[in-house]
Amino acid sequence: MENEPLLMLPGPVPMPERVRYAMMQQAMNHRSAAFGAVYADCVKTLKTTFGTTNDLSILSGSGTAAMEAAVANFGKGKQIASLVNGKFGDRLCKIGALYGTSHEIASEWGTPLNLDLLAENLENGAEVVTLVHNETSAGIKNPAAEVGKLTRKHDALFIMDGITSIGGDLVEADRWGVDVAMVGSQKCLAAPAGLAAISVSERAWERIADQRPFYLDLAAYRKNAAKTPMETPYTPAVPLFLALREACAIVEEEGLTHRIARHTRMADAVRAAVKAWGLTLFPTLDQYHAYSNTATAVSIPDGMTDDDLRGPVKKMGIIIAGGQDHLKGKIFRIGTMGAVSAPEILATLAAVQYALKKHGLEVGDGVGAAAEVLG
Amino acid sequence: MENEPLLMLPGPVPMPERVRYAMMQQAMNHRSAAFGAVYADCVKTLKTTFGTTNDLSILSGSGTAAMEAAVANFGKGKQIASLVNGKFGDRLCKIGALYGTSHEIASEWGTPLNLDLLAENLENGAEVVTLVHNETSAGIKNPAAEVGKLTRKHDALFIMDGITSIGGDLVEADRWGVDVAMVGSQKCLAAPAGLAAISVSERAWERIADQRPFYLDLAAYRKNAAKTPMETPYTPAVPLFLALREACAIVEEEGLTHRIARHTRMADAVRAAVKAWGLTLFPTLDQYHAYSNTATAVSIPDGMTDDDLRGPVKKMGIIIAGGQDHLKGKIFRIGTMGAVSAPEILATLAAVQYALKKHGLEVGDGVGAAAEVLG
Repeated sequence: MENEPLLMLPGPVPMPERVRYAMMQQAMNHRSAAFGAVYADCVKTLKTTFGTTNDLSILSGSGTAAMEAAVANFGKGKQIASLVNGKFGDRLCKIGALYGTSHEIASEWGTPLNLDLLAENLENGAEVVTLVHNETSAGIKNPAAEVGKLTRKHDALFIMDGITSIGGDLVEADRWGVDVAMVGSQKCLAAPAGLAAISVSERAWERIADQRPFYLDLAAYRKNAAKTPMETPYTPAVPLFLALREACAIVEEEGLTHRIARHTRMADAVRAAVKAWGLTLFPTLDQYHAYSNTATAVSIPDGMTDDDLRGPVKKMGIIIAGGQDHLKGKIFRIGTMGAVSAPEILATLAAVQYALKKHGLEVGDGVGAAAEVLG
Repeated sequence: MENEPLLMLPGPVPMPERVRYAMMQQAMNHRSAAFGAVYADCVKTLKTTFGTTNDLSILSGSGTAAMEAAVANFGKGKQIASLVNGKFGDRLCKIGALYGTSHEIASEWGTPLNLDLLAENLENGAEVVTLVHNETSAGIKNPAAEVGKLTRKHDALFIMDGITSIGGDLVEADRWGVDVAMVGSQKCLAAPAGLAAISVSERAWERIADQRPFYLDLAAYRKNAAKTPMETPYTPAVPLFLALREACAIVEEEGLTHRIARHTRMADAVRAAVKAWGLTLFPTLDQYHAYSNTATAVSIPDGMTDDDLRGPVKKMGIIIAGGQDHLKGKIFRIGTMGAVSAPEILATLAAVQYALKKHGLEVGDGVGAAAEVLG
């Protein structure tokens, strides 16, 4: 729509009308049965999306706040093995260095993680492992189940950033041995930005740091969530909770299995287009790694700039992402997250196809190939 | 309105329709000119309400997040003199102890602060002073200008929590020598809960801690706010920014001077009612301290319980606050913050008067006395 760009980013993503309109409600006392019920509704659905029966709290802050909460509460003063193959793995590693002793296990962005080196780190005493499940900066999905197996074997704690996978791709936190997992509201859940949920296992609670930050003290969240009605320790961003409850209701109505299948189908469609165009998906995979189903990263063809690619797309009102940091100008990224569906995917791919042709490339009919997947 | 309780708390407070409706907008890319303009509009008005020309950032978090940001960035490893005469002063003191060496200068809640002891602390090397300007837990307004004078005299940093005064009462951060000041969105600004703004003076920037938290790293906020368009370091709670911009537009339209006069008049009206009822305002004052103009604390008459007082008021759909912690059952509190005006004050006082009479007290016509002030 004119003056309302279509956001096809790896978050934030367009929100359904119901979700947006939920925020109009008049201010609510957050120490009340009414708010407690909203909080409880969100937690119930989110636990399903996490694949967990662990405690789950909702923080009024971004996904980064939840990443810091995880590391500050459970990694303080510890030996932390940080798996890094993209920007967000790097961020978790940096946060690790703030609170503990951070051991970076680095791969080139978008390439497989070194699980042998992880095993070695664990043998040498790593107490905490951090992983980004779905690394949108490079379009790669990391092997959380494998990492969980290794981590449990050495009795370490497993912190998994599921910020861009939970609610849109299969996450089985408990089955994978994840101790602490996080999601951001503005990604696969298609709620507004500003909230992050975090789950914590019993074995993590037993190892919580004695000295914790104040605003991000997860023990305080747990204590207040146990009250009747449920509360948060500090004033929550109430309108965002109202929106998130609506977004969770939509997840329940669609059904998580269907929702994950829809996300996969959308990503399949984008990948089919990339193949038909003769372009290259950015990540390199091995048997443990897969393409992300919520953000597809594509190498920009030689001779084209980021602006050649994304400029004409933007001019038509569609916002896709470029590369971050050293990948700027090297890749472009299309988000397939949340509530979007065939119309948004087709429009986006048609605009990208136009940009490729405008630049003089003779590309195949990616739009048609995608339609075959979506139809 | 039925099913929409009237919140007469010291925050959150009812929001004007314009503010609530601003949140309906479709998701926005937060790295865009459109978001940068929203952020810039908010900052411009907020600087006026703070009485500052210093840098000002907006955090996606509650007032408590801003309190922690202030102390963590500027008090780490320092000698901190914490002035305490209420719950929020106590909170700042506790945060101080997490990051530095905290020296509590405690008075009974709702009684004057000990400025002589502050002077002594400063002479003995205190490097940072923390103060809650408007202590809603006890209904007392603390002497920020005096504290600022003492603090500057000893070249210490002055952190002032203006969470419940800024936008509703006179704050002159620069003139008072405040180095770091904070406000919460859901108080006198009548915006939704979930944002906090923080201003930082040049002399504070020069003394910023080397090791800072990640999500609350104020240097990262400053760096990103200096970009064109303005940005935040991590994903901001965009709908709350849209609402805050609308709330700021309302402040501009009303004019800050008129807005402060309106808040004072509302508090005067509540105080006139208390006097007519023969009840007692909770705080004890001296020449430096004053009654809060945004939250009036009243002692509950002997023989009445909190429920006797607030129960009948709540039954009529009006939510006023009780006492916190050890003041539970001892006081009740009426907020006069934000966008509320004569109708809400009259309704609230009429409901309280009803509760007093229902309990068998022969009280004077507080409602009439308040109407005389408001009329």
